[in-house]
Amino acid sequence: MTAPSGLTVGIWPTGAAYINGRYVSVDEAAIPVTDWGYRRSDATYDVVGVWNGAFFRLDDHVRRFRNSMCELRLAPPESDEEIRQVLAECVRLSGLREAYVAVDCLRGKPKLGLARHPVNCSNYLAAFAIPWVWVVSQEVQRRGAHLMIAKTPRISEASIDPTVKNFHWGDLTRGLFEAHDCGADNCILLDTDGLVTEGPGFNVFAIVGGTVVTPDRGALEGITRMSVLELCNELEIPCEVRPMRAAELREADEIFLATTAGGIMPASRIDGRILGNDSPGPLSTLLRETFWTKRAEGWHATQIDYR
Amino acid sequence: MTAPSGLTVGIWPTGAAYINGRYVSVDEAAIPVTDWGYRRSDATYDVVGVWNGAFFRLDDHVRRFRNSMCELRLAPPESDEEIRQVLAECVRLSGLREAYVAVDCLRGKPKLGLARHPVNCSNYLAAFAIPWVWVVSQEVQRRGAHLMIAKTPRISEASIDPTVKNFHWGDLTRGLFEAHDCGADNCILLDTDGLVTEGPGFNVFAIVGGTVVTPDRGALEGITRMSVLELCNELEIPCEVRPMRAAELREADEIFLATTAGGIMPASRIDGRILGNDSPGPLSTLLRETFWTKRAEGWHATQIDYR
Repeated sequence: MTAPSGLTVGIWPTGAAYINGRYVSVDEAAIPVTDWGYRRSDATYDVVGVWNGAFFRLDDHVRRFRNSMCELRLAPPESDEEIRQVLAECVRLSGLREAYVAVDCLRGKPKLGLARHPVNCSNYLAAFAIPWVWVVSQEVQRRGAHLMIAKTPRISEASIDPTVKNFHWGDLTRGLFEAHDCGADNCILLDTDGLVTEGPGFNVFAIVGGTVVTPDRGALEGITRMSVLELCNELEIPCEVRPMRAAELREADEIFLATTAGGIMPASRIDGRILGNDSPGPLSTLLRETFWTKRAEGWHATQIDYR
Repeated sequence: MTAPSGLTVGIWPTGAAYINGRYVSVDEAAIPVTDWGYRRSDATYDVVGVWNGAFFRLDDHVRRFRNSMCELRLAPPESDEEIRQVLAECVRLSGLREAYVAVDCLRGKPKLGLARHPVNCSNYLAAFAIPWVWVVSQEVQRRGAHLMIAKTPRISEASIDPTVKNFHWGDLTRGLFEAHDCGADNCILLDTDGLVTEGPGFNVFAIVGGTVVTPDRGALEGITRMSVLELCNELEIPCEVRPMRAAELREADEIFLATTAGGIMPASRIDGRILGNDSPGPLSTLLRETFWTKRAEGWHATQIDYR
């Protein structure tokens, strides 16, 4: 059976994409090399996870994405409802039951004859669904990630708002090379005041004396982060959202990371220091297991129609 | 007659491009939506100007581009000599006598089966030649640009090195919207210490009591900036490269901007204040005219073989 687009379910198992109104295989999905979305990183995006054939917190992602676009004065033709449909259609065309689903809004290029200014561009959407991505591999999640605090400071909030999801990753990429050079799996960046912000694509949590702590600034307001706060409430684990000093992270009892593309991901080392018994700690493990159990039960799920 | 590529001169007058080893029309030149060059703005670039059928300071641009790639640990397959050939071939295929010629190096994507880390990506080049671009239109150059100092601070040098040409333009784009909202043509950004850095795609110069001053930090080491310093030396105009406070810029006798895509571009207003008689000042005009006269005479020129 075919759907509104006239294309068969699962025709693009390596991934299906939507570029400015047209559905294509992800292998053909491309953006002009002259587009300011690329040449000026003038774009925002969001990533929704699909697990067991259902989106997780789809409406929360679409709401955040719309806020990000408004902040950057980006206005694509699609409504929020159309965005939800585009994302579902990408998943349907891929046929994937577990997928990483991204949606970007790009500035575009100045219209012919108009001044070279972002106000004169036609903004548009690019979206794609590809097989599920683990930001931290499952193997590393089992032993706990080895983290390091990078010397490169996170780009300041005054210059680039981290709550507007963006591709300004030069600092995070430098941090990843720092991690690579010292044999760590991943990095965490501080701001110029020495406060913990985030890592490349994830929020950071420390567990200190039974309390879960996560930074209140300098980081994306992650949807998985929000889910962690809900789980803490449900499990009656004390939780604080507040400034977090680097020393506090280094001396934490447990550390875990949170992201759409991986859920709750425990760490076992930071800057060479071994946490607990060099494996995921008990509270991190409880949160992670509860998270996936609830996901399997349909928590915040929006079922995808694959017909 | 056809050239080594077998393609005829001037077949793509809207622009010719080179993407990862292949020549195409610029209208077809695209990069994968999943490429980290776009999704993490993990790329560097350079822009060379072609005027009267010749590159300006080609070797200086290629040298800077190679330095930028090394800093970011990007290593495409092409040698410096091959990069020069690619750029010349793009211009030849466009047939353009005046062109804006860009060359990017993108991170690419992690190779199949390897960890999602920038070390595991195949870096590649994208280049294109399109009709000449004026960052400040000729009309605005004649009356002098109306500038404003943006509230948005430039991304700190500690997070992103501004001497490595990059697409982290979110702060500059915000500055452009600030300029638009107050009716100015363009913006200049300060660092968090209140020192002048640069604007979207150009270096900044103030003339104070007959001395030309340009910031020594927080900005790209522009090739046109270097040419201005050479011209000052030749014309025996005193010149200083040092920290520049915002107040000094606001109270300058003259201001001008410098970029590949426009040369030396005088301003006539800053933050609403009128400079001189509301038109390009005498020293800015002298420098601008000398610059273009010397360009016409073949200064630092590398002739392009259009056969």
